Order: sequence, then C-alpha cells, then structure tokens
Amino acid sequence: MIYRDTVKPEWVDYNGHLRDAFYMLLYSLATDAFMDHIGLDDAGRRARQRTLYTLEAHISYLREIKESASVRVETRVVAHDKKRVHLYMEMFEGETAESVSACEQMMMHIDSSGAPKSASFDEDIAARIAAEPTVALKDARYAGRVIGLPVRASSVAAPA
Amino acid sequence: MIYRDTVKPEWVDYNGHLRDAFYMLLYSLATDAFMDHIGLDDAGRRARQRTLYTLEAHISYLREIKESASVRVETRVVAHDKKRVHLYMEMFEGETAESVSACEQMMMHIDSSGAPKSASFDEDIAARIAAEPTVALKDARYAGRVIGLPVRASSVAAPA
Repeated sequence: MIYRDTVKPEWVDYNGHLRDAFYMLLYSLATDAFMDHIGLDDAGRRARQRTLYTLEAHISYLREIKESASVRVETRVVAHDKKRVHLYMEMFEGETAESVSACEQMMMHIDSSGAPKSASFDEDIAARIAAEPTVALKDARYAGRVIGLPVRASSVAAPA
Repeated sequence: MIYRDTVKPEWVDYNGHLRDAFYMLLYSLATDAFMDHIGLDDAGRRARQRTLYTLEAHISYLREIKESASVRVETRVVAHDKKRVHLYMEMFEGETAESVSACEQMMMHIDSSGAPKSASFDEDIAARIAAEPTVALKDARYAGRVIGLPVRASSVAAPA
C-alpha cells in the first residue's frame, strides 16, 4: 500500500523543515489510505459502524525534508489478530530508496455504534488485511525500538 | 514545564476525536515551550545558531479527547548528555489527574550555522536543562515501551 503527498508550506517549522508532528500527519493519512483499501473507507465505516483507533505509534526521524517535497509512504503489515493490526511504514522523498523516516503503529478495531469499544474484524475485512503486503519484524529496520540514551553517555547513569 | 492548549476543530477527524497526529502536534508545541524555557527560543536560536531536532518519538494513546477540550502537557527530563535530551511528556484534559496520552522524545542539539550537524549544548543551556523537572525512567509509566501484539495472539507467531 503506497500513499503519496507533498509537504505543505504550513507543515514547515522554524527549522525550515517538515515539523516532527507533520511526519505523523503523513503517516496518519497513509493509515486512512490503508483503511480505504481494506474496506473501512468512509462508506464502510458508516455502514458497518466500525473504525480503527491508534493505540500506539513510534516514529524514527532519519533525514529532514523541505517544503514542496514529494513524499511516498509504504505501509506493510507486521502482524494482526482478531482486533488489532500492527503496521510498519517507511517514508521516502520522491522515488529515492533511502527512507527519511519510519513509523510503527498499533491499531485497534472499534465498534462505534455506541460508546466506542474494541471489536473483532468482520470476516471480509480480516481477509483483506491478510492479503496486504507484509514485512517480518526482523526485516523492519526501525521497528521494535526503545527510546533511550546510550547508558554510558547518560547524565543519569554516569558515575561522574 | 507545563504547556496548555485547546483542541481546534481542524484537529478532529472522522472518528469525532483528536486525530493521532495532532496529539503529536501538541507534544511538538510543548517541546517548543520547553526550548523557550531553556534559552532556545526564537531569539536564542538565531543568536546562537543552535536548535533541537527530534530523533525519535513514541506516543501512547490512552483516551480520546474531543473538540474544544482544554489540554495540559507536562514535560519532564528523563536524561541528557552533551548533545541529547530525553523527554517524557504526559497529556491531560483540563485539570484531571488521569493522562489521556503519553509521549517520549529524544531530541538532538544541532548547530544550524551551516549544514545541520550535532553539537554540544552551550554551558548555560546545559545548566538550564539540568534544572528542569526530572522523572526516573522507572516512574515514567508509559516510557520504554516496544510496540507489538501479545505473542500468543499474533497471526504471525501463532502455529495455526
């Protein structure tokens, strides 16, 4: 699943590059495209009273990008169960092969007919998720990361 | 360090709640407020030709919030070294004590006088960072997380 967009002027910050939060907006829009693709587009969400919520996201910022840059987000499925799907996404500038950013997200399927609550995917939706491109966790270069300073460099851990 | 804002109508998505990326925007604006506080405000950035870049961010989405909600983001320092600062942030609605979201970020200090490159904090800035409120990693409830499905639930890991 590929999502394409362009860096808008209002997404650029005082550093002259795409603000960190707007990388996340591009991933969020790519997730919308993924939802459209598996049958949870606007019509599907209304008819089924089902949607996806984001539970957790981890973004790695690898390179800066500037206003008007063409952006391509590639989305693959790491794993899924009855109610959740774990996505791995990489962002590229133009048609280059070196990523400018990577993002993992855990999404939860939600019954929105009343107070939002988790629900199993409908069978046809689950089948479409299973048919999406996948990536093994070991091949998802920036997945599974924990944020932290190297222990020896940290002012907290350092003895002096 | 506390940052306050209000959920704008354009930050609400088709689910009727604050879109995942705009939680990240609130954290980004809270980071700006942190920068102002340690001397890397707009004037400081220009005079010193120094700034912060985000290297990595991890967000936990705990509760949904709606348009016009008052938001409070509390930022504390987990650790820092000569060039980096590890922040832990929690977001609350109004004056409630239960967080709606949490975020860790690793920030890198950047010399922006030419092509951006990492640089040691100036001494006065380092002293201000050291004077900010801190939190031990063990007390930062949503820090240090890795995204993943429970192994037994995963369609990838399950034997059948």
